[in-house]
Amino acid sequence: MRNSTRSQVDPFIVMDVMEAARQAEAAGRHIIHMEVGQPSTGAPKGATEALKRALDDYTLGYTVALGLPALRQRIARLYGEWYDVDLNPERVVITPGSSGGFILAFTALFDTGDRVGIGAPGYPSYRQILKALGMTPVDLPAAPENRYQPVAADFAGLDLAGLMVASPANPTGTMLDHAALGALIEAAQGQGASFISDEIYHGLEYEAKAVTALELSDDVYVINSFSKYFSMTGWRAGWLVVPEDHVRTLERIAQNMFICAPHASQVAALAAMDCTEELQANLAVYARNRALMLEGLPKAGFDRIAPPDGAFYIYADVSELTGDSRAFAAEILDKAGVAVTPGLDFDPERGATTLRFSYARSTADIEEGLARLVRFMAARG
Amino acid sequence: MRNSTRSQVDPFIVMDVMEAARQAEAAGRHIIHMEVGQPSTGAPKGATEALKRALDDYTLGYTVALGLPALRQRIARLYGEWYDVDLNPERVVITPGSSGGFILAFTALFDTGDRVGIGAPGYPSYRQILKALGMTPVDLPAAPENRYQPVAADFAGLDLAGLMVASPANPTGTMLDHAALGALIEAAQGQGASFISDEIYHGLEYEAKAVTALELSDDVYVINSFSKYFSMTGWRAGWLVVPEDHVRTLERIAQNMFICAPHASQVAALAAMDCTEELQANLAVYARNRALMLEGLPKAGFDRIAPPDGAFYIYADVSELTGDSRAFAAEILDKAGVAVTPGLDFDPERGATTLRFSYARSTADIEEGLARLVRFMAARG
Repeated sequence: MRNSTRSQVDPFIVMDVMEAARQAEAAGRHIIHMEVGQPSTGAPKGATEALKRALDDYTLGYTVALGLPALRQRIARLYGEWYDVDLNPERVVITPGSSGGFILAFTALFDTGDRVGIGAPGYPSYRQILKALGMTPVDLPAAPENRYQPVAADFAGLDLAGLMVASPANPTGTMLDHAALGALIEAAQGQGASFISDEIYHGLEYEAKAVTALELSDDVYVINSFSKYFSMTGWRAGWLVVPEDHVRTLERIAQNMFICAPHASQVAALAAMDCTEELQANLAVYARNRALMLEGLPKAGFDRIAPPDGAFYIYADVSELTGDSRAFAAEILDKAGVAVTPGLDFDPERGATTLRFSYARSTADIEEGLARLVRFMAARG
Repeated sequence: MRNSTRSQVDPFIVMDVMEAARQAEAAGRHIIHMEVGQPSTGAPKGATEALKRALDDYTLGYTVALGLPALRQRIARLYGEWYDVDLNPERVVITPGSSGGFILAFTALFDTGDRVGIGAPGYPSYRQILKALGMTPVDLPAAPENRYQPVAADFAGLDLAGLMVASPANPTGTMLDHAALGALIEAAQGQGASFISDEIYHGLEYEAKAVTALELSDDVYVINSFSKYFSMTGWRAGWLVVPEDHVRTLERIAQNMFICAPHASQVAALAAMDCTEELQANLAVYARNRALMLEGLPKAGFDRIAPPDGAFYIYADVSELTGDSRAFAAEILDKAGVAVTPGLDFDPERGATTLRFSYARSTADIEEGLARLVRFMAARG
């Protein structure tokens, strides 16, 4: 048996960093993890307690494909609370994480060979999932002066069937304001490209509030998840918001491709949505970490960074320090004991001169990591 | 925005039955559910207790993409216990249910337009997932005299890139013995078609033991799940066994398409594998129900049934009673108060003259359902 052509996706370079960090730790070294893209906190206490009660009270069989009605209603209410958007719960589709949301959205919207624009730098799995589904990802190299976000001129005439953007973005943390997001939606719709807004980092913003695409148009797909703000990475629960006349199609695809999102995770997610105090305390830690990073990274010499509007990442241009971010990350791990992610996973071309620093871990880790980076860079000269 | 062509999958006809049953119940009627394809039992007690402890003890973040190493090892051990097969745990890939297993297996093996043979009758989502991925399902009408399972002659010269079989099968419950399964694998491999064995109903067998494709060849994909024998439908945990030189490819696809299977479900599944007493008690209920069905259905007039070797289904040829199984199922629901599944979901052509009866519910339900069917058919004359 041979593997298909579409299955030959690129490995994540960060996996090499994580494996090298693991080996260093196995050899007795202490490593600070600024490479990870997930919270170190678990699901909120209220979520795990609600699940424990459910485990005693009833059988967690399949849910309906669109997800628990109470969860869909609660998510619709969130759009009122967060954005003052009045959302019909029928438009909410519960998915197995945002990963499941990508598969459902791409399948619902695109056919074989369809060209879908994605910003570079961006989340690497966009590209790989599109390829695995037989579609054609089109990298849109985004300019630093545009906050590393695509603008309409970047995809004019590119014959796109779809455009996918993220705000706050991974790896940069940058956001699109009303005007910028509105211009992208208009330009996409103007050329007949379906617009998909990845809003997985909403709730993790520090100055302005993130804008949902639903404030600007109902004719869009929105992807979100319980993994980041709600601190439930391993649970694989997320959601889509789609136009009303797409719901039935999504339901049928979801029935066949997933049956349903994990029932236990849906129960926990519903309870998590009311754990505001614990979630805001997590956010306060990120805010503190971010302030430390914005003070400490320039001291170490990493001063060309994208505007860190949200999420828990800082994306640094290190072109004055290296032309090989992979080797540089290996050197930082080896000499400073800090794991960071080379930009190549996010931008195959220009990522050779960028690094992503995550501040998702504890404040003590961030302080120690920054101190190590300052010492390392001073010694490197 | 328009939906893609590939997203236009057929609805499940059983959904109409379930909706009609729901409406009847809402109107105060009592309905016996012989349409459902899932156990009414929940996860074993040992599984939910293990999860409760985990919720107190640690954070359920992402697992590695291939799944918890302890779970992969425990599954490998199962192959020793159940089949006397010595399996390298490295070949086991944990998936988000068998649904995730299908997506991963098809993506790993097939490219756009590739033709994949599936038996008819068969699980309808095979066809829909293949279509949603841009591949071409090829129905292989299977003969009653071959236990409704494909034989080599059914796909000779069909230029298949893959062949998918299930034993025990849904909707028939029929199994392939060593000789039949071996002949299929040999015929598939002989024409360069990748062989995929859906073994989701293994463990639910009543006379002979089910045969795993791994007893016959290492050059196959095996798909299994915790949903049926292990009674964990809503948890979305399953596994693949693949050739050693495919593991790295599966790992990369899984990283991108799913990140990981739900962590909480993996914890519960690992514990479920040692809940033998409770699981065997569930099996004893199915065995009792099956005996009642084999006695009661012929009394009602449903006597042309496929050999019910395993799973919890009976597939009946009702061509002497109707040419419209959908209308017949509606009549049975309306007049007898028993929900059954028309065969059309499983066999778009010949399913107009077949019904599937599930005996996954309680024995009391089965007794009452059979009594109703006998009365209904006697009155129908």
